[in-house]
Parts: sequence; C-alpha cells; structure tokens
Amino acid sequence: MNPTLTTRLANLRARMAETGTDLVVIGPSSHMLYLADLSPHGDERPVLLMVSPTFAGFLMPALNVDSARQHTDLPFFPWADADGPDAALKDLLSATGVPASPSIVLDETMRTDFALLVLDALPGARRRFTQDTVGYLRSRKDDAEYDALKKSAVLNDAAMAAGFAALRPGITEYEVATVIRDFYKAHGATTEFCSVCFGPNGAFPHHHTGDTRLKDRDAVLIDTGGRIHGYPSDMTRVGYFGSKPQGFEEIHAILDRAVTAAIAAARPGVPASAVDKAARDVITEAGYGPNFLHRTGHGLGIDVHETPYITATSPTVLEEGMVFSIEPGIYLQGRFGLRLEEIVIIRNGKAEILSEMPRTAIAGG
Amino acid sequence: MNPTLTTRLANLRARMAETGTDLVVIGPSSHMLYLADLSPHGDERPVLLMVSPTFAGFLMPALNVDSARQHTDLPFFPWADADGPDAALKDLLSATGVPASPSIVLDETMRTDFALLVLDALPGARRRFTQDTVGYLRSRKDDAEYDALKKSAVLNDAAMAAGFAALRPGITEYEVATVIRDFYKAHGATTEFCSVCFGPNGAFPHHHTGDTRLKDRDAVLIDTGGRIHGYPSDMTRVGYFGSKPQGFEEIHAILDRAVTAAIAAARPGVPASAVDKAARDVITEAGYGPNFLHRTGHGLGIDVHETPYITATSPTVLEEGMVFSIEPGIYLQGRFGLRLEEIVIIRNGKAEILSEMPRTAIAGG
Repeated sequence: MNPTLTTRLANLRARMAETGTDLVVIGPSSHMLYLADLSPHGDERPVLLMVSPTFAGFLMPALNVDSARQHTDLPFFPWADADGPDAALKDLLSATGVPASPSIVLDETMRTDFALLVLDALPGARRRFTQDTVGYLRSRKDDAEYDALKKSAVLNDAAMAAGFAALRPGITEYEVATVIRDFYKAHGATTEFCSVCFGPNGAFPHHHTGDTRLKDRDAVLIDTGGRIHGYPSDMTRVGYFGSKPQGFEEIHAILDRAVTAAIAAARPGVPASAVDKAARDVITEAGYGPNFLHRTGHGLGIDVHETPYITATSPTVLEEGMVFSIEPGIYLQGRFGLRLEEIVIIRNGKAEILSEMPRTAIAGG
Repeated sequence: MNPTLTTRLANLRARMAETGTDLVVIGPSSHMLYLADLSPHGDERPVLLMVSPTFAGFLMPALNVDSARQHTDLPFFPWADADGPDAALKDLLSATGVPASPSIVLDETMRTDFALLVLDALPGARRRFTQDTVGYLRSRKDDAEYDALKKSAVLNDAAMAAGFAALRPGITEYEVATVIRDFYKAHGATTEFCSVCFGPNGAFPHHHTGDTRLKDRDAVLIDTGGRIHGYPSDMTRVGYFGSKPQGFEEIHAILDRAVTAAIAAARPGVPASAVDKAARDVITEAGYGPNFLHRTGHGLGIDVHETPYITATSPTVLEEGMVFSIEPGIYLQGRFGLRLEEIVIIRNGKAEILSEMPRTAIAGG
C-alpha cells in the first residue's frame, strides 16, 4: 500500500478508537477513493470497504476482482452473480471481528440497498455517518492537497475570465458554458459543473444553464468548477452586459462586504456557524436577509460538497487545513440574483483565499 | 401534469394496491425522472418524492423550489439550510396519510442518509425496494420507449462500426474510445460508457480503457453505449487485428450459439433464469462454464442497468415490453476475453433484437 494510504488508514483507526467505533463501512465513493485509491465500477452490485481496528477488506463482485486487484492489495471477499453477496458479506464481517451490537459508521453517500445489506446483517448496530471519522479526516487537508486545490483554483480563475470574455449580444448561457468547458479540456482539466445565468435566471440558485440569450443590461452570474489532478475548483463571479441593471451595484457591494466579514471571522477554533453568521449579519442589516436563501458554504476536497458545512447550525469548529466555500447570495425574483464565492483554507491561523481573481463586477460588452 | 406522468402515477397506485404498499419513497434518480420528469440538483440536501394512495409530493430544499417548480406541479414541502429537513419531512409524511407500521417501498439507489431519514421517521415500517412497483412498471416499455430504444440502438451500431474502423497499429484503447465518444457527440448523443479492450485486457469484464497499444493478433472487445432523447444503448462486439489469435474462432462461435439459444428461450411467461440457463448451458457444454464469470444480462431503459436481471436466481417472469441484454462472455486470463451482447425486447411473443449489426467477428487492419 502506498505511504499516503497507510497513513490515512492509521489515522482512521485512531479516530475510530477516539470515537468508540467498531466498524467503518464505505461504498464506492470519494470516501473509498480517499482511503483506498479505488474507484470501482459503479453499478448495482454491492462493493463495500470495511475497516475495523484489526482488519480491512472489500466485499467485491467476482467479475471485478482482477481489475480491482491492480489498484489495492487489501483482501477481497468475492461474490458471484449466481450466488449473490450474502455469504461473502458474512465472511467479511466475521474477518473484521465486529462485536455484537457494534457501533458502526456508514458511508452516507452509498446506495440504500448497500447500506441495508449491512444493517440487516448487524441487528442491534448503533449507526452514524462519517462526519467525525472519514469526513473529519478529509476536512483537514495536507500540503499535497493544498497544492492541488490551489492549482485547480488558479486554473479556474482563467476559465472564469474566458467565460466572461465570451459575452456578446445574443449568445446563450449554454454557449458561454461551452467556452468554459472547452477551456478546462484544453488545459487538461475536466468540467465538474458550470452554471451560467443571464438576467432573472440568476435568481434561481440552481438554475439549469439553457438557451436564454444575453441582452443589454442583463446581470450575469457564472458559478463554475473544473477538476485537475483529482481536485476540483468552485468559484462564482458576477458581472453585467452593457450597462448595470438597476440595483446591481448596491447588491454587489453588500455581498462583497459579506464575504469580507466571513473571511475575517474564519480562524482556527471558531465555530463554522460564526462564519455563517458573519456573512448573514451583513446581508440582514442591509435588509436582504430573506433573499439569502442558503447556507454560507460547504467544504471542498475530493468532493465539491463535503465536510465542513458553513451553516447556522453546524457543529463544526474550524481547524487548520479545513477548506470551504464562502458564497453569500441575494436573489431578487424577476430581476436578477447575485452571489460571490471564494474558496478559503484555514492556514497559519487565518482564512487564505485560493483564487487570485478580484471579486469586482465584470463588465461585458 | 403531462398525460404520460398521469398514467404512470395511476399505474403505480394500482401496483401499490396489488402489493399492499402504503408509501413509495423515491430519491433523485431515474425512478424520479420516470415518475415525475424531474432531475433535481443532486447534492447532499435531501430531496424525496413520496407517493401514497391519496397523495404525492416532494420534500425539497428551499433554494431549489423555484427551479424545480418549472418541471412539476406536485406540491413541495420546502426546507431551509438553517432549519434542516426534519419538520418539512414530518409535514410531508402527515400529508401522505401513511398509517402506523406502514409497508413502504424505498428507492434502492438513493443515498443512505436520505433513506435513513425516512426509516427513522417511520419506526416499525416494513420496507422493500422498488422491484415489484416502480421497477416493474419501468421494465415494461411502452411504444414510445420502444421507438426511443430502437433509435438509440441503431445509432450505436454506427458508433461501433466507427470504433472498429479506427483500428490501426499502435493506436491506444483510449484513442479508439475517443473516436466513439466523438461519434456520439457529432450525432447529438452523449456517451453513456465506452470500454475498449485490446488483447489480454479483454479478460477483465470491467477493464478500464487505457493506454494499451494495439498489436497484431490482438483480440479487440468494444462494449459501448450512448444516450439520445433520454434513452441509452448498450452493445458488445468483438474482432481482432491482423490475424486471429489462437482460439478466437472457437470462443466466438460458442458465444454466438449462446446468444442464439438465449434469444430462442426468451418469450413471455418464461422465467428470466431460463434465459440465463440457455446461454450458460451452451458455454458449460463447450467446457468454458467457469470462464463465464457473470450473469447473462440486465434490463435497459432510462438506466443502463435496471429490472429485469437475467440471472440464475432471478425471480422475474418475462412479459411483453421487457427490454434486456443477453451478453454471455468467456474470459481467458492472460490471453483474451470475448463477449457478445444484444439488447432484446419481448414483443409479439418473442425476443426481437434492437441492433441491426451482425455478431460476426470484425477483422481490423
């Protein structure tokens, strides 16, 4: 096993001891990629990684054994299509030495049928999800992960600039997104997501990029992220075409102050909820509290959304190495919606922004 | 609601009555697309469609309400990031009129945390997955679905031909896959998956297409599928480069006989397991039983893998309108692996092949 994975497995077992966990059960997911560098063929055939204090191994469909063996040296408990997974699962659970009525951690992202296979095999198990084990470990990035996220963010700055540079009368949201997607591809990255919103479409926080055409005085919102060397980016910038729509400047300034306040609040030892509050207070005091429809941010690592979540009720206390978005938004139905998003890392006692692109409104046309 | 969705919801309620089901719970998935034509923004925020005999509605993150409203007129029970989903879920369950200790159906594909939210809110629920409700309805394709799958299959024939036509000395598996992906794109389709295997790589049923270069006397296996107008294709053909590797002709002939036998066995009223047996018997009698590592097939519809599964132990009895793959394979470690795959529909009392491409081995170079 490579040294990074050996360290991660040891760190997981230390967290398991601290949290009284008997068994961690992981499906095909970013958790499995993080712990075992394995991205198995994803279909309805159960694949599970189980880690106990004394054992780690995989439930694995027989037809994928040879292919998966090239990626991991952990033991496999194979099962054939004709037999189903029950007997192999029983053998694997036995190998883990899991006690009766165990305390188990389930991968919250895995398919329901995978998880219920395990719960049905372990009646009396107390269960929780990964937030204080694998999720916690993943939230504190090491130096290699910092470097990868920084590179990904800087590439994304250029992709964002290319998107805004493409604005011209009558271009569609989809065409601008294609410019950005092509930019990622030309630079060895893949598109993680790309949301382009013109005018009133920006008032839907998860608008589907479509065939709306750009008009004069449209607000423009681009929220985009690529992935390179395994790590994603995520950034939102806003601008306008021709001249600024009524009210744009005021809303943009409020959001910029909200981002600045949240970044100032984000330090080791501070609750994530205080970061949410710092951004939210600025917006509420400006009279737009009801128009800020969502949490302030989410963690970013192998996944674009992961621990820690920056919400009013988050139990997380920030620590060195944590990476997350700060992305307050104000949505004005029928007019426009704006959002400004930075990815920050808690590093050397403060929140460092990964992007090098100003949050200034970008004038198109 | 459009007439197709109205019909599907009525059919679901009829199946719920026949199976004594009080509540069907669906996550963001192909099941939700089938029942409600909604593909919600997929993240860690719970989205659930619940259908009872008297009610249907969505648990929905508040920030997606406006965007989702454009796609469905079913009622929403929105929840804000600051509050979490518990209260909205309680209201939704109450609106469904679900009794105490209900019999519920869970979407087997949804995230574990979504499903456990429901199970924790319904202590005493008896649960099963969708196989005899939504899965059953989806397995019997209507005429519009047949047309869509037929068109997708015929386009895939041309994509397959383009892939084999690209073979030349030293080309990589990845480059051949790129030819096929580009073909889909140029014809308005998207790539669903594309597996290209040269030589011994074909012996891994789920080999990851990579940088292996084509050599003389390599067996070539291409298993590929695109998606157009919402419906996918899936087909495997094999060939060789230069001259045939030792044993290729024998194995190819056995597989072709196995496909023919399975197709002959597939009729309404026949168990899916008899179709598996028909293919398997040919291979076993030829002495290669242990080298046929997997089931004979899987259903194909909105998903590339769905009900019915064609396995030795499948409980499914075939009916008119069912669409599935027949794909026996023989894998010879260190040498090559071959598989021949057809998609068939049970139609007018027999199995009709959707592809129009012969299963002949394709000579490259």
